[in-house]
Amino acid sequence: MLKSWFPWTKGPLIVSAPMLGASTPRLAVNVSRAGGLGFLAGGTDPTKLNEMLETSRQLLLDHEGQQLEAQHGTLPIGVGFQLFNSNLNVLSEAIALHKPAAVWLFAPKVEDDLRLWATKIRDVTHGMTRICVQVGSVAEAERSVVLAKPDFLVVQGADAGGHGRRQSASIISLIPEVNDRLAANFRKGEKIPVLAAGGISDARGVAAALALGAEGAVMGTRFLVAEECGIPDGWKRELIRTQDGGVTTTRSTLCDRLKENHDWPQVYDGRAIRNKGHEDEDAGMSDEENARLYKEEVKIGDSAWGAHGRMVTYSGTGVGLLHSIEPVESIMKKTIRESRLLLDHAHRFSVSSCL
Amino acid sequence: MLKSWFPWTKGPLIVSAPMLGASTPRLAVNVSRAGGLGFLAGGTDPTKLNEMLETSRQLLLDHEGQQLEAQHGTLPIGVGFQLFNSNLNVLSEAIALHKPAAVWLFAPKVEDDLRLWATKIRDVTHGMTRICVQVGSVAEAERSVVLAKPDFLVVQGADAGGHGRRQSASIISLIPEVNDRLAANFRKGEKIPVLAAGGISDARGVAAALALGAEGAVMGTRFLVAEECGIPDGWKRELIRTQDGGVTTTRSTLCDRLKENHDWPQVYDGRAIRNKGHEDEDAGMSDEENARLYKEEVKIGDSAWGAHGRMVTYSGTGVGLLHSIEPVESIMKKTIRESRLLLDHAHRFSVSSCL
Repeated sequence: MLKSWFPWTKGPLIVSAPMLGASTPRLAVNVSRAGGLGFLAGGTDPTKLNEMLETSRQLLLDHEGQQLEAQHGTLPIGVGFQLFNSNLNVLSEAIALHKPAAVWLFAPKVEDDLRLWATKIRDVTHGMTRICVQVGSVAEAERSVVLAKPDFLVVQGADAGGHGRRQSASIISLIPEVNDRLAANFRKGEKIPVLAAGGISDARGVAAALALGAEGAVMGTRFLVAEECGIPDGWKRELIRTQDGGVTTTRSTLCDRLKENHDWPQVYDGRAIRNKGHEDEDAGMSDEENARLYKEEVKIGDSAWGAHGRMVTYSGTGVGLLHSIEPVESIMKKTIRESRLLLDHAHRFSVSSCL
Repeated sequence: MLKSWFPWTKGPLIVSAPMLGASTPRLAVNVSRAGGLGFLAGGTDPTKLNEMLETSRQLLLDHEGQQLEAQHGTLPIGVGFQLFNSNLNVLSEAIALHKPAAVWLFAPKVEDDLRLWATKIRDVTHGMTRICVQVGSVAEAERSVVLAKPDFLVVQGADAGGHGRRQSASIISLIPEVNDRLAANFRKGEKIPVLAAGGISDARGVAAALALGAEGAVMGTRFLVAEECGIPDGWKRELIRTQDGGVTTTRSTLCDRLKENHDWPQVYDGRAIRNKGHEDEDAGMSDEENARLYKEEVKIGDSAWGAHGRMVTYSGTGVGLLHSIEPVESIMKKTIRESRLLLDHAHRFSVSSCL
């Protein structure tokens, strides 16, 4: 089904996550150009969203006159929204105008908002834009399917960088259980495709996602170190430097408190690289003082990142697998080629070693 | 290499984790009989360990007169030890006598003890017993290789039930990073085999582990619901009942405090099903009172398990994938057969959908 909705994509399907300030039009467009599905982060400002979509359209058209084969004249990229602080009526105008191939819904203030968003977006795009919902538990997947009737789901495990559920399994057990429960409860005979997200940094994670039963893999952190990514160089350097992500990153709400983002619904926190701010919090520093010191460092700019810095450095546990800043095209080619080889190898290995 | 050390095993290699009070001789022996590598939990009492090994030897010999083809006359099962509360000199006598095919080292009081244990066990078994070390981070893997020169590693991710590192990634990013780092730093050209543990409950997890680069998969929670497993029926029923393990299980040191196991080194906690004890702790109950209530319930026995019970119910996040209590043979057959099919399918899917 995914292949018929997104006919320009290659297998295995690689998706770039919508990441605020990071997922630029160039990033999203180049992911789609390389056979994946690139997402913009929609943000909250309708003018900016419109500009990003307009820029994406230009980038898609300009490149040697080629145009990707998108369905029914949709734009062959997606847009992701954080629902809790976004105005559906305002933002849906840009969606109606540009008709991205997919819209990704995440973090509603109340889950019932998923229904409103899905209905409105289908309405204004005459059903041309596919809807997906990001979930982090089996129960959330079931409720989201009832509420939004999504075309597909993004199932995010605990390894993911940035925001996600405070309490969750990794995709290792989450993907199989979500698939089993959806198969048992919904649309008899018709499978809701599931994409895996969280901890996937290269072909090995992609191959594992497929083995688990996902129909594609979402990478976030890996695309943070793409040349086209919009984050500061200091952040990229920290990602390249950091190893052993299970120990050096941590889930916490500290980054939201430092940035004074108090609107995130209670079930979410975010995974980031541990730094001086986390250390000071552990040692008992107040949020007020920690936020004050953070704001001082923000003024310094790029050089404020580093082992003893305070900058917010969202990252998944797969950060230790990043070794260089590369163009999207090179990331995509390598990941697709290697994941095909790996699945072939794993298959042969499992069979040959049974003799 | 694993195949040459454990010649009776089939691919993909399935290992049953050493779980105190759970991994009976019947369980370990039946895992090995079905083409896996079964582990006993060595415990701290040398007399009991000797009895378990003697029983295992009988079970291995008695069954229709068949004997598994183990290398150099070793016993075709393994034994796992928690080092921090175990006496090497006393326990190594049973190892010297029975020469299990493998010894699994976990949780030293200080990491340097890994060297002592590995040296002594190699010494008393004339190098016949293979050594593995369980690790939960990239840095720990590197240090353990230097200290113990293990024949292979068990790399445990955050989804695992029971004890493990407080802070860790899941195997999704941990297995690839450990493999990369070992390949870069140690024994040039010679690969140290890595087994994946944590969140693997069925063939999909096994297939994913191989895709990630592991040479086999360890299952713990899945074998807790084996008929041969030594845990109380109430615990097994709770495991079958529980779903959505990322939300319904949690990592905590509460279970150690309730059981007054105060000797676990600081870096470890344990994943268990959340129950009344966790709720009361969250609501501010003292450890003293919580432990008192726990002990009251222990007296009740099997019926004390349940949604509002207080019994310690270790479980991995894969608990929602368990649906029945089965004999080991059936678990093993299904898992091996299905994981081979899955890898074949994932390979075909990735290739066919690229057209």
